[in-house]
Amino acid sequence: MRTGPSQDEIRRQNLGALLRYVHVHGATSRAELTSRLGLNRSTIGALTADLAGAGLVSEGAPKETGRAGRPSLVVRPESARVYAYAYSIETDRLRAARVGLGGELLDRRELDRPPGLLVDEVVPLLAAAVKEMQQSVPAGSIRVGTGAAVCGMARRDDGLVRLSPHTGWSDESLTTRLRDELGGGLPVVTGTIADLSALAEHVRGVAAGYHNVIYLYGDAGIGAGIIAGGRRITGHGGHGGEVGHMVVNPGGRVCSCGSRGCWETEVGELALLRAAGRAGLSGQAAVLAVVDPAARGDANAQSAVRQVGDWLGFGVANLVNIFNPELVIFGGTMRDLYLAAAAQVRSRLNSNALAACREHVRLRTPKLGDDGALIGAAELAFERLLTDPLDVG
Amino acid sequence: MRTGPSQDEIRRQNLGALLRYVHVHGATSRAELTSRLGLNRSTIGALTADLAGAGLVSEGAPKETGRAGRPSLVVRPESARVYAYAYSIETDRLRAARVGLGGELLDRRELDRPPGLLVDEVVPLLAAAVKEMQQSVPAGSIRVGTGAAVCGMARRDDGLVRLSPHTGWSDESLTTRLRDELGGGLPVVTGTIADLSALAEHVRGVAAGYHNVIYLYGDAGIGAGIIAGGRRITGHGGHGGEVGHMVVNPGGRVCSCGSRGCWETEVGELALLRAAGRAGLSGQAAVLAVVDPAARGDANAQSAVRQVGDWLGFGVANLVNIFNPELVIFGGTMRDLYLAAAAQVRSRLNSNALAACREHVRLRTPKLGDDGALIGAAELAFERLLTDPLDVG
Repeated sequence: MRTGPSQDEIRRQNLGALLRYVHVHGATSRAELTSRLGLNRSTIGALTADLAGAGLVSEGAPKETGRAGRPSLVVRPESARVYAYAYSIETDRLRAARVGLGGELLDRRELDRPPGLLVDEVVPLLAAAVKEMQQSVPAGSIRVGTGAAVCGMARRDDGLVRLSPHTGWSDESLTTRLRDELGGGLPVVTGTIADLSALAEHVRGVAAGYHNVIYLYGDAGIGAGIIAGGRRITGHGGHGGEVGHMVVNPGGRVCSCGSRGCWETEVGELALLRAAGRAGLSGQAAVLAVVDPAARGDANAQSAVRQVGDWLGFGVANLVNIFNPELVIFGGTMRDLYLAAAAQVRSRLNSNALAACREHVRLRTPKLGDDGALIGAAELAFERLLTDPLDVG
Repeated sequence: MRTGPSQDEIRRQNLGALLRYVHVHGATSRAELTSRLGLNRSTIGALTADLAGAGLVSEGAPKETGRAGRPSLVVRPESARVYAYAYSIETDRLRAARVGLGGELLDRRELDRPPGLLVDEVVPLLAAAVKEMQQSVPAGSIRVGTGAAVCGMARRDDGLVRLSPHTGWSDESLTTRLRDELGGGLPVVTGTIADLSALAEHVRGVAAGYHNVIYLYGDAGIGAGIIAGGRRITGHGGHGGEVGHMVVNPGGRVCSCGSRGCWETEVGELALLRAAGRAGLSGQAAVLAVVDPAARGDANAQSAVRQVGDWLGFGVANLVNIFNPELVIFGGTMRDLYLAAAAQVRSRLNSNALAACREHVRLRTPKLGDDGALIGAAELAFERLLTDPLDVG
């Protein structure tokens, strides 16, 4: 009965498991790695030596522990030398970051994004930001790939942006353009901002340790990143999570997608601004210009927040009935709305969601804030390295 | 670098993989097993001998192939000797079956279920059906467990039925009662009818080979079985898929759950019967008494079918936007409604779902029909055996 994974396959799996552990948990003693990975001490030593030889981790003495005796050596990810580029392409800004192994933001750039900017115009701006950041990369660094978070629908296979009504993009192959402009023969992987923010919070944020999570992200529209059974759920073509286009009010307004009464027509920032008598404005600053006065007691703003918050609860209750999650996270402008209207959201959740579906659900804001999109994009880019560490670099 | 799964673990994995293959695909030649499982011929021979020794498979000559040369021996699941009991506890009937390895329905019983029957009254009826079936079980047979499909919300850990408004059950521990009554020290596993029907169609029905599937099951209410990324999605406590309580019409009717405008208030059988002027009736016969006249041109029935079918499309479009599935299956009374109103469902799907989310979706009826619930319950019961074949029996 000799058949099974080969020694080489087992070694690659173990290398990946060790590198993933320090990527997620940071500097870790050999002793802890031995117990957490269920491998013996000599194996941990050999794996660490291989990874250190490839420049992916380093070993050293731990920081002061205050304990007597010879301390176990600590294995650290080479965060300053091993990195991915991450982009977040949003309705009103463009962000680029260099993210080190371990999830550290090493460098970053942010640009305003004038309305109507096309893919052809966005990509050179990101390329310029990368060129600038590249100048301060230490010699001998290892770049492992690029991830991009996109406000719109990014097809899993090729990053084709299928529909992004709030940017005016339709069927634009972002991944191809990014790869062409940013070159290096390295893969470029894409996802929606909601999806990648969910991934980031699951790996190293408020959702760490949870298996069923919904991350609602709001900008002009609303999307969800979904973790179910501990894994990202993105659907057949990577287009799942379009909860903003769940119809909740069939008699409501026409949506940018052509349908009527979509959830985002009731809870998107335009809905809030319309309810507050500020139609025509948009963006997070405009949202805060309603939410802040509401907090200070402005009756008109409070009424708008309550109305839109009630609709927020409607959709959350629907998702709780469908997914029975442990956690719902409110990110982007949904964070501001949720904080202002938590009572309405909770009340609607209690009246509309079944007790069994909602009884363990926690409502939270992101631990990583807006950085989640960048960190999640980098997580996606690191995935290849973490699966087979010695095959990359 | 010796660490990895032990020889014994690899052997168990391989035994499970071989048994699962013939369980799903039926009689399979050694040659095909060798190529499909990526194991060498001598390993397949040894594994088969072990499984045959445990009474789980048998080997023999294939049926006439018409090809010259010595044919490869065929490995068959011992369907007549290795079995699970499966129950389907529905709003208006109780079903029990003995299901052989390989998914064969060896024996079955069906009983009407008077309205208002409690768990305490249901379990003895099922126990009596099992006792009767047990009399014709061949000597030397191996019983591996019991699975139950329930109309209501069954908690994964203990099968507690949390809410089943259409049966009047609330917080009833079905699993405990089944285990106590039907004994044998074997595990009893539960799921909703929708969830287990989805599982059955995914293993051996219309959803085989698909990774993202929604199975809508209708009786008095509506639930969904969800397969995403190739795996069952059941949520934190096993209560996901309660799509019938997704609010689609906030101005609509009060639902049995206490909320208002839930999808099932618009598309459940009561909604159809009300729309057809037959309020007060219920059950599949009553649904057919609307659907059949509609097919024959009855204007009143057609109007009811069109109205309810339009609402069916509403909810399906929402789910397609959320899950980006390849397949939506309509089971139970949703099958009858879908077949009568496919045009309305498709039209609403086209207008309400985003193109990228719906472009690859197929709408289908179950291949296994109502037997899906029983076969799925048995799949759940077989899972332990298929994970570690020699540890069971």
